[in-house]
Amino acid sequence: MPSIDRNTANDEAFKRMCAADPVLTDIGSALDVLPGMTKETILTSGPALAWDDYEGGQRDAVIGGALFEGLAADRQDAEAKLTSGEIRVDGCHDYGCVGSLAGIYTASMPVFVVENRAHGNTGYCNMYEGTNPRRLNYGVYDDDVRDRLLFLQEVVAPIIAEAIRISGGIPLKSMMRRGLHMGDELHSRSTATSLLFTRELFPHLLRIDAAKKEAVAHTVQVLTEDHYFFLRLSMAAAKCTADAASGVEGSSVLTAMAFNCRNFAIRVSGLGDTWFTGPHATIQAKLFDGHTEDEITWMGGESPITETIGLGGFAQAAAFALQQYQGGSPDAMVERNLEMYDITVGENPDYQLPYLGYRGTPTGIDLMRVVETKILPAIDIGIAGRDGGQIGAGVVRAPIECFEAALAAYRERYGGD
Amino acid sequence: MPSIDRNTANDEAFKRMCAADPVLTDIGSALDVLPGMTKETILTSGPALAWDDYEGGQRDAVIGGALFEGLAADRQDAEAKLTSGEIRVDGCHDYGCVGSLAGIYTASMPVFVVENRAHGNTGYCNMYEGTNPRRLNYGVYDDDVRDRLLFLQEVVAPIIAEAIRISGGIPLKSMMRRGLHMGDELHSRSTATSLLFTRELFPHLLRIDAAKKEAVAHTVQVLTEDHYFFLRLSMAAAKCTADAASGVEGSSVLTAMAFNCRNFAIRVSGLGDTWFTGPHATIQAKLFDGHTEDEITWMGGESPITETIGLGGFAQAAAFALQQYQGGSPDAMVERNLEMYDITVGENPDYQLPYLGYRGTPTGIDLMRVVETKILPAIDIGIAGRDGGQIGAGVVRAPIECFEAALAAYRERYGGD
Repeated sequence: MPSIDRNTANDEAFKRMCAADPVLTDIGSALDVLPGMTKETILTSGPALAWDDYEGGQRDAVIGGALFEGLAADRQDAEAKLTSGEIRVDGCHDYGCVGSLAGIYTASMPVFVVENRAHGNTGYCNMYEGTNPRRLNYGVYDDDVRDRLLFLQEVVAPIIAEAIRISGGIPLKSMMRRGLHMGDELHSRSTATSLLFTRELFPHLLRIDAAKKEAVAHTVQVLTEDHYFFLRLSMAAAKCTADAASGVEGSSVLTAMAFNCRNFAIRVSGLGDTWFTGPHATIQAKLFDGHTEDEITWMGGESPITETIGLGGFAQAAAFALQQYQGGSPDAMVERNLEMYDITVGENPDYQLPYLGYRGTPTGIDLMRVVETKILPAIDIGIAGRDGGQIGAGVVRAPIECFEAALAAYRERYGGD
Repeated sequence: MPSIDRNTANDEAFKRMCAADPVLTDIGSALDVLPGMTKETILTSGPALAWDDYEGGQRDAVIGGALFEGLAADRQDAEAKLTSGEIRVDGCHDYGCVGSLAGIYTASMPVFVVENRAHGNTGYCNMYEGTNPRRLNYGVYDDDVRDRLLFLQEVVAPIIAEAIRISGGIPLKSMMRRGLHMGDELHSRSTATSLLFTRELFPHLLRIDAAKKEAVAHTVQVLTEDHYFFLRLSMAAAKCTADAASGVEGSSVLTAMAFNCRNFAIRVSGLGDTWFTGPHATIQAKLFDGHTEDEITWMGGESPITETIGLGGFAQAAAFALQQYQGGSPDAMVERNLEMYDITVGENPDYQLPYLGYRGTPTGIDLMRVVETKILPAIDIGIAGRDGGQIGAGVVRAPIECFEAALAAYRERYGGD
């Protein structure tokens, strides 16, 4: 059994999270930028399952991805090729990227490339599909969804890519830090940070050839039309931040939280890439008008990578405006945020919460403390409906079972009781 | 004595404030747009004083304005012409505009034109000079200040004016409403709202002739470089909002709070344009590094027009990030904000505070309640130094004496005890 000092190891993992310096350096197609990606691969959220185990909206989303990419002629053809393995399904995390909800990546989709310049590693995320509640990452594929995906791919992504190239790289940390002072928690609300990002792009957008003026105007509209554009950048930033803290021998700090249609799962720094799974999270939801609780369904989600590095549900006291979107009261948000300090290693000196007197966000979830205190990580998420599409938003709590499973594995590897 | 029902009158004043619909329609020179402005007039903050009564930074600021406008060859010449009346000094409020700090307006300066489309009246404000703490509105005039004023006049204002004309008018209320959800209180912090305004302009900026690309880039930089650009727009919006509530027979609601180098003053809806004065406000300051309390000086200020309509100090619970700039704690900010409900007529249904469960901001300061409760209006301001320039920021409380003076006048006119 390796001899380790868990506290020292956790401090190292925490330190690497805080030191991360995510910089947006490019947009490229998934095929070009994701290590290991192939033309026939479709990535989806959560620990990879056998094709037969994907169900409901997540299954529909993968099939939608196959149709969008032209890998199958129709649904039946897609099912056949997915069953035979001609089309391969895999988990986003193993390709350096993270998926929002069902989290579908196909070869041609544009992907943000975010380098962690402090650690030399890279995280990736694809683009927010827009305000329509019916979108591929919520298990819907139809002509509208396809047109929107093509619009992002053909109009928006090239403009942002050109602006990024002119800029020489756009540091994300400073705007994430400022966003926390402007009502964002960088998971379910990135309203201000999307504006800060757009402001960063403006001077470069102005230098793009006048012939592309319409595309530039469309792009600015997409960047700022709602609360969500920047989420994919904070997810990519969080992925390369969490990955930097991964693989610290003896550390019990979480490096990922994610789920698929079957279960919730976590990864732990000192336990490599193994997923420790449990049942679905518990949920407090606020549903859009016309929807009911019995419609709520699970079709995956890896945006809890933001909570993994101390944002989202760990920074709710930054984003009181969220109550209108996902329910709850300001007092409950503060109380929940304060609880998270009991299960984390430290406070991020850069990501601070003005309402808590500029206290740093609780960072580095220690599985030991979760098991000991029974305080479960709080996560802000969008909620999917049985028939596809987003039907609301809310706060979920990770299930204790993943932590217990991880603790058992930790003890097996490192000893202790 | 007129027979009045004060509550009904105050409800009317409150209703007019809430109904206001400020729309930015133009930028023009002070000479062209301000009713009554002349080439030889210099406007400054607070109730107009005899020239001999202006002292310190406010006196310096008026002289600086005379030099900037070319009305005098040097300081001595300016003093002589101001003494003789060849150069006329007057109060901003009487020309439909409001002054930030010393609040200098000269004929050539660019001025925002904001129409209240609900009431058919107009408010005006000139432009933020920028991040240098040494600026004309803080009593400083030198080559740098002049160059910056000319840059605003010759480069920035024409670009924004062109964008406004292309837009057909830019409604301000919706972005002010959103700014309150994004950490702004719209007096000492307008960070998010400045970005929202820039976003609104951006599609129009893209349509400006490519030959002006550099000027457009400079303009975007000016719009977004710090917390203050939008303040001048919220001041103009607040001015036309407060003016709409002015002149309601029998109303004891405040329609202005302002100060000059000598005193603090208020106006009351049912008492017309009379200023009721008192001593300077009391102050809780946070000074920039290297400055001390004994440097604090008063050189005027009419930005409390924002508090007059329920923003700024009346919306501190929207802007916890302000504590770093102007001191205090989140708890004190909340407590102070809650106090303001005790001295106001109602809650603005559009301007809401997420931290207070989306409660509307306390709106329509009733002088009766101020005198009765001794709770004095709280105002967020920038702080000027003896030698000119901004040396900090803080929260002031209006002095009770203006309210007592106004109460006496109210009783004289309307009776009661």
